[in-house]
Amino acid sequence: MDPIRKLGVAIIGAGFWGRNHARNLKELSETHLIAVCDKDEAKANAVADLFGVDAYTDSSKMLKRRDVEAVTICTWSTNLAAEATKALKAEKHVLVEKPMANNVKEARKIIELAKRQHRYLMVGFLMRFIPSVQRIKQAVEKGEIGSVVYATARRVSQWPERIGDMGVVKDLAIHDIDITRFLFNDEPVEVYAKAGNFRHKKFEDHAQILVTFKGKKTAFIEANWLTPYKIRKLTVTGSEAIMTLDYITQEITLETAGQTLAPRYEVKEPLKLELQHFANSIMNGREPVTTGLDGLKALQIAEAALKSARTDKAVRLKPL
Amino acid sequence: MDPIRKLGVAIIGAGFWGRNHARNLKELSETHLIAVCDKDEAKANAVADLFGVDAYTDSSKMLKRRDVEAVTICTWSTNLAAEATKALKAEKHVLVEKPMANNVKEARKIIELAKRQHRYLMVGFLMRFIPSVQRIKQAVEKGEIGSVVYATARRVSQWPERIGDMGVVKDLAIHDIDITRFLFNDEPVEVYAKAGNFRHKKFEDHAQILVTFKGKKTAFIEANWLTPYKIRKLTVTGSEAIMTLDYITQEITLETAGQTLAPRYEVKEPLKLELQHFANSIMNGREPVTTGLDGLKALQIAEAALKSARTDKAVRLKPL
Amino acid sequence: MDPIRKLGVAIIGAGFWGRNHARNLKELSETHLIAVCDKDEAKANAVADLFGVDAYTDSSKMLKRRDVEAVTICTWSTNLAAEATKALKAEKHVLVEKPMANNVKEARKIIELAKRQHRYLMVGFLMRFIPSVQRIKQAVEKGEIGSVVYATARRVSQWPERIGDMGVVKDLAIHDIDITRFLFNDEPVEVYAKAGNFRHKKFEDHAQILVTFKGKKTAFIEANWLTPYKIRKLTVTGSEAIMTLDYITQEITLETAGQTLAPRYEVKEPLKLELQHFANSIMNGREPVTTGLDGLKALQIAEAALKSARTDKAVRLKPL
Amino acid sequence: MDPIRKLGVAIIGAGFWGRNHARNLKELSETHLIAVCDKDEAKANAVADLFGVDAYTDSSKMLKRRDVEAVTICTWSTNLAAEATKALKAEKHVLVEKPMANNVKEARKIIELAKRQHRYLMVGFLMRFIPSVQRIKQAVEKGEIGSVVYATARRVSQWPERIGDMGVVKDLAIHDIDITRFLFNDEPVEVYAKAGNFRHKKFEDHAQILVTFKGKKTAFIEANWLTPYKIRKLTVTGSEAIMTLDYITQEITLETAGQTLAPRYEVKEPLKLELQHFANSIMNGREPVTTGLDGLKALQIAEAALKSARTDKAVRLKPL
Repeated sequence: MDPIRKLGVAIIGAGFWGRNHARNLKELSETHLIAVCDKDEAKANAVADLFGVDAYTDSSKMLKRRDVEAVTICTWSTNLAAEATKALKAEKHVLVEKPMANNVKEARKIIELAKRQHRYLMVGFLMRFIPSVQRIKQAVEKGEIGSVVYATARRVSQWPERIGDMGVVKDLAIHDIDITRFLFNDEPVEVYAKAGNFRHKKFEDHAQILVTFKGKKTAFIEANWLTPYKIRKLTVTGSEAIMTLDYITQEITLETAGQTLAPRYEVKEPLKLELQHFANSIMNGREPVTTGLDGLKALQIAEAALKSARTDKAVRLKPL
Repeated sequence: MDPIRKLGVAIIGAGFWGRNHARNLKELSETHLIAVCDKDEAKANAVADLFGVDAYTDSSKMLKRRDVEAVTICTWSTNLAAEATKALKAEKHVLVEKPMANNVKEARKIIELAKRQHRYLMVGFLMRFIPSVQRIKQAVEKGEIGSVVYATARRVSQWPERIGDMGVVKDLAIHDIDITRFLFNDEPVEVYAKAGNFRHKKFEDHAQILVTFKGKKTAFIEANWLTPYKIRKLTVTGSEAIMTLDYITQEITLETAGQTLAPRYEVKEPLKLELQHFANSIMNGREPVTTGLDGLKALQIAEAALKSARTDKAVRLKPL
Repeated sequence: MDPIRKLGVAIIGAGFWGRNHARNLKELSETHLIAVCDKDEAKANAVADLFGVDAYTDSSKMLKRRDVEAVTICTWSTNLAAEATKALKAEKHVLVEKPMANNVKEARKIIELAKRQHRYLMVGFLMRFIPSVQRIKQAVEKGEIGSVVYATARRVSQWPERIGDMGVVKDLAIHDIDITRFLFNDEPVEVYAKAGNFRHKKFEDHAQILVTFKGKKTAFIEANWLTPYKIRKLTVTGSEAIMTLDYITQEITLETAGQTLAPRYEVKEPLKLELQHFANSIMNGREPVTTGLDGLKALQIAEAALKSARTDKAVRLKPL
Repeated sequence: MDPIRKLGVAIIGAGFWGRNHARNLKELSETHLIAVCDKDEAKANAVADLFGVDAYTDSSKMLKRRDVEAVTICTWSTNLAAEATKALKAEKHVLVEKPMANNVKEARKIIELAKRQHRYLMVGFLMRFIPSVQRIKQAVEKGEIGSVVYATARRVSQWPERIGDMGVVKDLAIHDIDITRFLFNDEPVEVYAKAGNFRHKKFEDHAQILVTFKGKKTAFIEANWLTPYKIRKLTVTGSEAIMTLDYITQEITLETAGQTLAPRYEVKEPLKLELQHFANSIMNGREPVTTGLDGLKALQIAEAALKSARTDKAVRLKPL
C-alpha cells in the first residue's frame, strides 16, 4: 500500500449518521472525502459546507465522478438496497449500512451484482469494530472462558424520534444476530421468537429471540423501542468464565470463580475503525471482514425470527 | 389470634437448610421449635443440641407427638413428597420446600391429601417473601412501570458441592417460574427451552427457557450450575420503566426515562418472613400465599420446559 | 494446643453487641460460653436463655467463677475501662471493645494492670479481622501498589438510635485510626482536624481528620452521624495502584493502569474471626494482635484530633 | 441581542486544548472563528487547515485584526498571564484558561488591566459549566441536602505525558477550590495541606488539602499525578442527603435515608457551554460568571495550600 494514496469516497445520505461518516472520512488519513449526496438539498449542503466538500441531491450524478472510488450508504433502511445497486452499477466499492436490504432476496441480488462488477461490498456491522468486542472474540478463541454455553444480548431504547420502515428485529436485533455469529464462529440452526407492537402501528416494537446454534449453544436477544432509555449489553457465558460488555461505555469484564477483572481500554469510535478498515481493504485488495454474505445471513435469521413470532413455532434455518 | 399462642413446629431434614429453619423457628415469637429429625443421627443431634430441642432419626415417630402441630420439610428433593405425605397423614400442617415433589403427578396427590386431611399445605417459594419482590409486585400492580412487556431472570451458580437427583430446571429455574407467575399475575400458555449437560451425568446443568404468558408477555429464564459464581437477578421491563432486582443483596432499581431510583431497604431474611407467614396463616386459619397449587403449576411448567428441550419444539400448556 | 481444650468465656454487656458475642462464642469450637452479665436483668436473661447459659446482673459475682477464664466486655463505652479493671483484678484474660477507655490515662492504667496480673489484654479492633483488610495489608507489604501515598476513610452513619457518652471521633474514626496505623505499619506524627455538632448536644457528630505519618504519608478520615445511611469505605492510594474496600460488603478492588481487579472472597463475620483469635492466643500463650498499646495509641490520636479541632491548629504527637 | 450577530474570536495556543476550542467555536452559532495562533507553526497550521481559518505564529500580529473581538487563551500555564495582558492591551475580550496566572500578583494585574480597558475577563473554570454541577448547586441552594457539612473532591491522574511548569495544586486542585467556593457560596478562612513529590523534580505531584470555610464547612481535596488512571469525583455531604458527581461521566446521585436517586442527563460538552456563555456575555454586555476575581481567589487558596505544606501549619486566609 502506497502511504500517500488516499481513497476517494463519497457519502449517500446526509442525515445524522451521514454526518458522522463525513467527519470520520475527513479525519482519517486513508480517505479523501469528495462529496455528499442527499435528496434533501438543505441537508446535503449543511454537511458539505461543514467539511468543505461538494453537495449533490442526485446520487446518479455524483456516481459519475471518476474520483469517487467508493461510496458509503447511510440512507433510510428501505433505500439502502436501491442505492447500493446504483453504486455498484457505477463500479464503485460500497459500504452499505445494515440491514443492507429490505429482505433476503434483495440482499442476494446485491451480492451477486458486486461479484459481477468485481467491486467490494461491505455491510456496516459497526459493533464488530469495537475494540472490546475484539477482546471478547479473542477470549472465546483462546478458550479463556472455557466452552461457550450461551450469550444474552440486550439492545433496547426509548421510542425513536423518527421511526423508519422497519421493526426492531431488522433495526436493532440484527446487530446482535451478527455479533453472536461472529463470536461463536458458528451458524444458527433454529430460531424461536416472540414479538409485538405496543405503540408502533405497522412493525414490531419489541422482540425476544432465542437463537440456537450448532452444538446447542444459544443466544437470547432482547430488542425494543419501549425501554425508557438506551441499553446495549452483551453477556457471554462460558463453562469457566463470563464476559460482559457495555457497548455504550465499551467496558468489559471477565468474571471467573476467583475474581472479576475489568481491563481498561481507551474508548475508540467504532465508526472510524470501520471506515478505516473499509478504505484499507479496498486499497490493499482484500475482502472487508463484514461481507455481503454476513449481511444476508443476518437478514435470513431476522426474517426467521419474525416468522416464528407470527406462527408461534420454532423455525429451522436452511443453510444458505 | 392469641398473642401468647405459639405454634408447635418440628423440622424434617437437618442439613444446611434445616439448620436455617431451626434457627429461625427458635428466634420467631410465633413458633415453638420442638424437634428436628434426620436419618443421619449425627446431623439430627448437632442441630438439636445447638437449639436445645429433641432429635429424631425416624420421622414417623416424631410425627406421633401431639405437641407438633406443623412440620417444615427440608430433605433432599426426591424425598419431599414422601415426607409431606407422611406428615399430612399424621394430621400436621406442612411447609414443604420447593420443588415439593418429583413430578406433577406426585404434587397433585399431596394437594388432594392436604384437602382431605383439612390441613394447610404451603410450598417454600422463598423468593416471594423478599421485601423487594413485594415492592416490584406492588409497582407492577399500581402501573408504575406501565404495561409489563417481559421479564428476564438469571439464576446461575458454580457447580454445587453436592448434587441431587434433579437438574437446574426443577432446582433453580422453578423459583423464577413461580416469581414470574406471581409478578405477572398470569398463567403461561407456551414454553420453549434449550437445555444441556456439560458436566452432569444424568440431568441438565444449564437451561434457557422462554415462557409466554397470556397476552404475549414473556419471561426468559437462564439457569445453570456452570457459571463461576452465584448470580441471582431479575429484570422486569414495562412500557414506562424497568425494574431490576438482585436477589442476593435484595437491592432494586426503578429506571425511568428521567432517572434511576434505588430505594433503600433493610435487608431481611426471607426464610424468617416465610416461616412467620406459615405460622400466622395456620394460627389464623388462613391459606398461606404460596399454595400447593402454586407448586403444582411451577412443576408443570418446569416439565414442559424439559419436554421442549428434548423435542426442539415449543410446548403448549394445558390449563390445570 | 490440645484440640479438645475449650476456653471458658463470659460476656459483660448483653446488648446488641453482647448478643453477637454470645452467638459466636457458642458456635466457635475453641470457646465454651459460660455466662452473660448485664445490669439490666431482662437483657441478661434474654441472651442467657437463647443460648442456654447462666445470667448475672453483677459482674463481680460472675468473675468469681473459676471456670470463667476470659471475659469479653461489650458495655457502654464509658464503662469499658471499669469492667476491664475488675476483670483483670479477678485474673481473667480480657477482650475489651474499642475505644477501651474514656481517655489515654485510663487506657494506660489498664495496660499496666494487665501486665502486673500476667493476663492478656486485647482491644476489639474488629476491622483488622476482615479477610479483605488482610488482603490489603498483604498488597501493601508486597509492594503491589508501589509506595503508599495516602489513604482516605469514610465511616459515616445516620443518627444512632441510642447515643452514648462519646463523639464520632472516639466511636467511629478510631477504627480508621487503627486501620491506617496497621496498614501503613507506621506511627502518626501530626493530626489536624475539624469537628462540629449539628444535632448532638454534648459531643461532636461530624469530624474530618487529616493524620500525617512519618515520611509524609497521610490519612484523611471522615466520620459522622449525619449521613442518611451507613457508609464504611477505605481507599489506599499507592504510586502504582489504588485499593478500595467496602467494609460492609467486604469487597475490594485493586486498580492499576491497565485494569480493575476485584477478587471474590467468601464473606466472613469479622467478630467470629476476632473471638477465635482471642481464644487461640490465650490457649497458645501468645499476645493477641490488637494489643492494649494499639488501643492506647488510637486513643492518643483521637484526643489529638479533638484538640486540633478545638484550637484550629495542627497537633504534633509525642511518641508514647 | 441581534440573533445574526456572531462574535469574532481568535485562539492563542493550538495544542490539544486549543484544538478543542477551535472545534467548538466553529460549531457554535454565537461565534465566528477567525484565526488561531501558536508559536509552533506546524501546530498553528494544522488546526487552521482543519477548520478553514487563518494561522499566526505571532499573537501580537493577530491581535491587530479588527474583526477579532475576543480571544481565548490556551497556552502553557506559565504564558497565560503574558498573553492575557497582550490581548487586553489590544482591547480584546479575554477568556483565559485556569490558573490564569503564575501567582496572585500577576492575576491582580490582569484584573486591573481588564477594568481599565473596559474589557471582559473570564477565567476558564470549565467544571462550573457541567449541567450536573449546576444541578448540585441548585440542590444546595434549595436545601435539598439540608445544611452543607463538607465536600470531598478527588482529581487524580496518571503521570501526564507532558508536564508543565506547575504542580498539581495549581493545575488540578484549583478546579475543586473553585467548585467548592461556588457550591458553598462561601469563602475559605483556613487552609491546611500536605504535598510531596514522588517523581516530579520541581513541583509537588500529590497533595491533600483541607480547606475550612466560614461556619466550619470544610472541603477535602485530593490531587495527584500518581494514580494509575484518571478519577474526577466530588461528594457533597449535607445534614439530610449526600450528592455525588463523577465529572467524567457527568453522572450524579442524590442519596437520602430512603433511596439513591440518579437523574439521567444528556451529557454535554462543558467547553461548548463555557464558550457559548463567554460569547453571549460579551454580546449582551454582561459580566461572565467565572470572573478574574474567581481566578484570583482560587490562586490565593492554592498558594496558601502550598505554604501550609511547606510549613506544616494551618494558614489563615486574609480577605482579598
